[in-house]
Amino acid sequence: MKLGMVGLGRMGANMAERLLRGGHEVVGFDPNADARKALEANGAGSADSLQALVKALPLPRVVWLMVPSGKITDDTVDALLSLLAPGDTVIDGGNSNYKDSMRRAKLYADKGLHYVDCGTSGGVWGLKEGYSMMIGGDEQAVEALRPIFETLAPGKNQGWGRVGPVGSGHFTKMVHNGIEYGLMQAYAEGFSILQHKQEFGLDLHQIGEIWRTGSVVRSWLLDLTTDALGKNPTMAGIAPYVVDSGEGRWTVDEAVALNVPAPVITLSLIERLRSRDTESFSDKLLAAMRNEFGGHEIKTEPK
Amino acid sequence: MKLGMVGLGRMGANMAERLLRGGHEVVGFDPNADARKALEANGAGSADSLQALVKALPLPRVVWLMVPSGKITDDTVDALLSLLAPGDTVIDGGNSNYKDSMRRAKLYADKGLHYVDCGTSGGVWGLKEGYSMMIGGDEQAVEALRPIFETLAPGKNQGWGRVGPVGSGHFTKMVHNGIEYGLMQAYAEGFSILQHKQEFGLDLHQIGEIWRTGSVVRSWLLDLTTDALGKNPTMAGIAPYVVDSGEGRWTVDEAVALNVPAPVITLSLIERLRSRDTESFSDKLLAAMRNEFGGHEIKTEPK
Amino acid sequence: MKLGMVGLGRMGANMAERLLRGGHEVVGFDPNADARKALEANGAGSADSLQALVKALPLPRVVWLMVPSGKITDDTVDALLSLLAPGDTVIDGGNSNYKDSMRRAKLYADKGLHYVDCGTSGGVWGLKEGYSMMIGGDEQAVEALRPIFETLAPGKNQGWGRVGPVGSGHFTKMVHNGIEYGLMQAYAEGFSILQHKQEFGLDLHQIGEIWRTGSVVRSWLLDLTTDALGKNPTMAGIAPYVVDSGEGRWTVDEAVALNVPAPVITLSLIERLRSRDTESFSDKLLAAMRNEFGGHEIKTEPK
Amino acid sequence: MKLGMVGLGRMGANMAERLLRGGHEVVGFDPNADARKALEANGAGSADSLQALVKALPLPRVVWLMVPSGKITDDTVDALLSLLAPGDTVIDGGNSNYKDSMRRAKLYADKGLHYVDCGTSGGVWGLKEGYSMMIGGDEQAVEALRPIFETLAPGKNQGWGRVGPVGSGHFTKMVHNGIEYGLMQAYAEGFSILQHKQEFGLDLHQIGEIWRTGSVVRSWLLDLTTDALGKNPTMAGIAPYVVDSGEGRWTVDEAVALNVPAPVITLSLIERLRSRDTESFSDKLLAAMRNEFGGHEIKTEPK
Repeated sequence: MKLGMVGLGRMGANMAERLLRGGHEVVGFDPNADARKALEANGAGSADSLQALVKALPLPRVVWLMVPSGKITDDTVDALLSLLAPGDTVIDGGNSNYKDSMRRAKLYADKGLHYVDCGTSGGVWGLKEGYSMMIGGDEQAVEALRPIFETLAPGKNQGWGRVGPVGSGHFTKMVHNGIEYGLMQAYAEGFSILQHKQEFGLDLHQIGEIWRTGSVVRSWLLDLTTDALGKNPTMAGIAPYVVDSGEGRWTVDEAVALNVPAPVITLSLIERLRSRDTESFSDKLLAAMRNEFGGHEIKTEPK
Repeated sequence: MKLGMVGLGRMGANMAERLLRGGHEVVGFDPNADARKALEANGAGSADSLQALVKALPLPRVVWLMVPSGKITDDTVDALLSLLAPGDTVIDGGNSNYKDSMRRAKLYADKGLHYVDCGTSGGVWGLKEGYSMMIGGDEQAVEALRPIFETLAPGKNQGWGRVGPVGSGHFTKMVHNGIEYGLMQAYAEGFSILQHKQEFGLDLHQIGEIWRTGSVVRSWLLDLTTDALGKNPTMAGIAPYVVDSGEGRWTVDEAVALNVPAPVITLSLIERLRSRDTESFSDKLLAAMRNEFGGHEIKTEPK
Repeated sequence: MKLGMVGLGRMGANMAERLLRGGHEVVGFDPNADARKALEANGAGSADSLQALVKALPLPRVVWLMVPSGKITDDTVDALLSLLAPGDTVIDGGNSNYKDSMRRAKLYADKGLHYVDCGTSGGVWGLKEGYSMMIGGDEQAVEALRPIFETLAPGKNQGWGRVGPVGSGHFTKMVHNGIEYGLMQAYAEGFSILQHKQEFGLDLHQIGEIWRTGSVVRSWLLDLTTDALGKNPTMAGIAPYVVDSGEGRWTVDEAVALNVPAPVITLSLIERLRSRDTESFSDKLLAAMRNEFGGHEIKTEPK
Repeated sequence: MKLGMVGLGRMGANMAERLLRGGHEVVGFDPNADARKALEANGAGSADSLQALVKALPLPRVVWLMVPSGKITDDTVDALLSLLAPGDTVIDGGNSNYKDSMRRAKLYADKGLHYVDCGTSGGVWGLKEGYSMMIGGDEQAVEALRPIFETLAPGKNQGWGRVGPVGSGHFTKMVHNGIEYGLMQAYAEGFSILQHKQEFGLDLHQIGEIWRTGSVVRSWLLDLTTDALGKNPTMAGIAPYVVDSGEGRWTVDEAVALNVPAPVITLSLIERLRSRDTESFSDKLLAAMRNEFGGHEIKTEPK
């Protein structure tokens, strides 16, 4: 198939390349000229505007969005809505909030266009190993895109599927990321306990290697964690500063909205907030309280 | 009554003073001579050894321990065991682990001595406002000490009581402190949220004052927190470093041992650990993991 | 002063009565005729419609809303907006989301009306003990209402205050309730640990009584908890089912939005969700997982 | 090699079988005669007492314990201590507390015997896929057992290793299980959120299948979870009752002792306690408190 790829950052460029390798035709658009050139070097066409991209595609057009969630996605979705024609399809492969995807899909449906939300997992490894894709949208619209999904996925019938109507793809990906937060935090805590047990002089990289095969905790994240421990066993030079990127927060919101207790996923998010709260007002106030009732000494800050 | 007070630190000295004001006779012992002199200045007797203290007391003797939990308490309890006579009573008013108190009481009972464990709350305010006391021990032994408890307590029949057999006093105080951790953390988090809502320019001290009267969250800890916010609204110069002192840990252990879910008390302890873990290995590893799977940038540490 | 009270449920009726006792004139409206009659019996006027209420008030009018948050507040605010005149003031004393209050205040300001958001704490005890009130709004508008606040509050200058611009009143009340969740959960966990320590045969009511005076954990909530334990020491007949009412959820959302770690307040909310999740899918799945990897027995459900 | 296997339950029998398949000689002991017969049917020898087992083994003897942790392990270790001779080796392959292993190893060392602690992961799948083994003990003692570990492990040099001195094997396995609790809870919470989003009609088994390939959350536990969801998508007939087995509790204790914040592992344990606390006293008390301060209705229990 021939499709347009909007957004040629790390994820978009890799996906375009995997599609090209799979025999598809790709026309890419990105405001960054270097990104476009890099794509052309891989044998794809490129366009320097959404208008040009749309013109370069055969009817019915297929446009894959791989842009940051939020305003950029909103602007792009709006622009394409006025450029595309009935029967065309937009796939949002980014990390949009599922409610936004449902709202956008309605605008598209009102004009006879298809809107498909595809939660995409796999990170920088997707180019080589394939992307896990959770897809929401009309059955027909999704079915028509089958050749694309089969190429992007780890295997023809593996690692991808239509999970329900529009919104369900990003919803499922959101929960996927919530789980990811929990898994990561569990490993991080465990390795931290091992690291603090100094009397045993444990080699964390070795333990990761042992666990990778045969143990109950083996996983792809453990493989990566073990690799990271191999490269930098003491995490030297790395700040204890953990970013979060939206899906974790949405999962927490959604769990509460659905009355589902999700303490571990929620705490995993809170721990990330905590990692960035280096001058915790809470903790200062706790120290002050202890001083008030018990006369306990307060540790003062270095000037 | 006449009693010996072992340990003339902040708590012991204050309790001795409250007893003196209440018409009791006190003989104090502390290895620190200044502490003994300060007590004498309040009209008490003093002894420069446990032996001297024991000699200075009438039969049956009453000795109140107000020393740090752990080894010092153990050593003092052991020494007194060989110095005292059947019918004498030792009260451990400190923060001992209830299992230690049960073990020590058994040694005392085997020799015909009484052992009473008294969980004492009230901090530096106890001198003025009285001490809340949760007492474990034989009914007779506790009853014989009634005049002491009535004087130390906030009111004759208020704020103290025998809650059960030996061990139950320190057990109840341990849980008291676990609750205290939870209450403190709840206030700290709430004020921290208020503090971060910069668009409203909230005055945390004023809000504390409002809440002190009539609100559902009014409490003595809120009074103290409000006072602390009045003195230092931004917590300037205070390090976000929160000490914990044993009872919180024991409460967590005990909750698990009893199969009682206590997530909030437990998290309150963990947050204190976290406040002191400024170079979190967990968080560094999380940052490294994110880099491994998603190519996400790692924040580096300042050299 | 003379004011209109909209909503004569438990809270509204009590507040009207406290105002009447304080020498104010009140005209009440509620769709429920019995509620209106009860108010009249206390010496107030009543109106059977918002229109009638507005007509019965002198200029500039003051209308206090004490209705459930959400749609009913929205409808009432909308209706009053078209009935009132520039210079009139509406006070929302309910548990509205602060963002809604800010939105509503803007509509009012556009028409020259005042909108004041007043977070009100004190529950059923407010009639007797006064209400703690956190107030947001223009300084002048709030100042003009001073006689009302002085009467409703626990003391003339106690337990109330303007904390900032519109929205800040409900924001502060929201955080108040978040703290309340945390405090309640801490007490509940602590008493549960005591209750499970069967070997000591502890009397929870007695322990509550001891703690009420002099202890670090003394508070109004502890007073109420102790009363509840006095009436029903085993909590016989009470289902372990805990309702939450919006402010806790909003506090959790807001903490995340502000990047403030609030683990204890958050867990307190999650525990309430958990109390209602009696057929936990998570837990069933965990049991199934244990069976899958370890062959561990699954407990089956009674048919 | 020839070794004795003490304990022919699910784990011990499977390990014996894997050793036999790998060309080793095994003599098994279990008080249960059926278990012994089943082993004999696989070509192993058997002994009806520890004495007989010891007699059946060549010098230096190697005895692998695969019995429940706690008293049974203690009794067996004590019995073997008096039956074995200097140079002999006992390997504890069960889930003993690492402190017990250190204590036992000291008794053995005092008599010139070797004691090796081997944390074993893999569950019922180990027979087929091999066991992940984290081993603590003297280097020489472990090295002498290499043929056994190479056979039991998933691969000759995969999934096993000496991680440090005696105790470190069980310590590492303990942390492994703590992580396992966290991972399981994260998946359970995520699938529960998906299950509650009824508007999307999600097929949890399908989503598990998608995630198994290419996604960031792929893991062996996800494979098993997906299989469980395939067999029983609604978890019908399974009670929401989750057992814990010691290592989780020890991990929580150890984290606190080492001052390592481990909120997610800790909460995962607490959630298991919570699953079995169907008549939560905490929650009843919370409902009673809400009634006390707000007059909120209490849900009563069915008689």
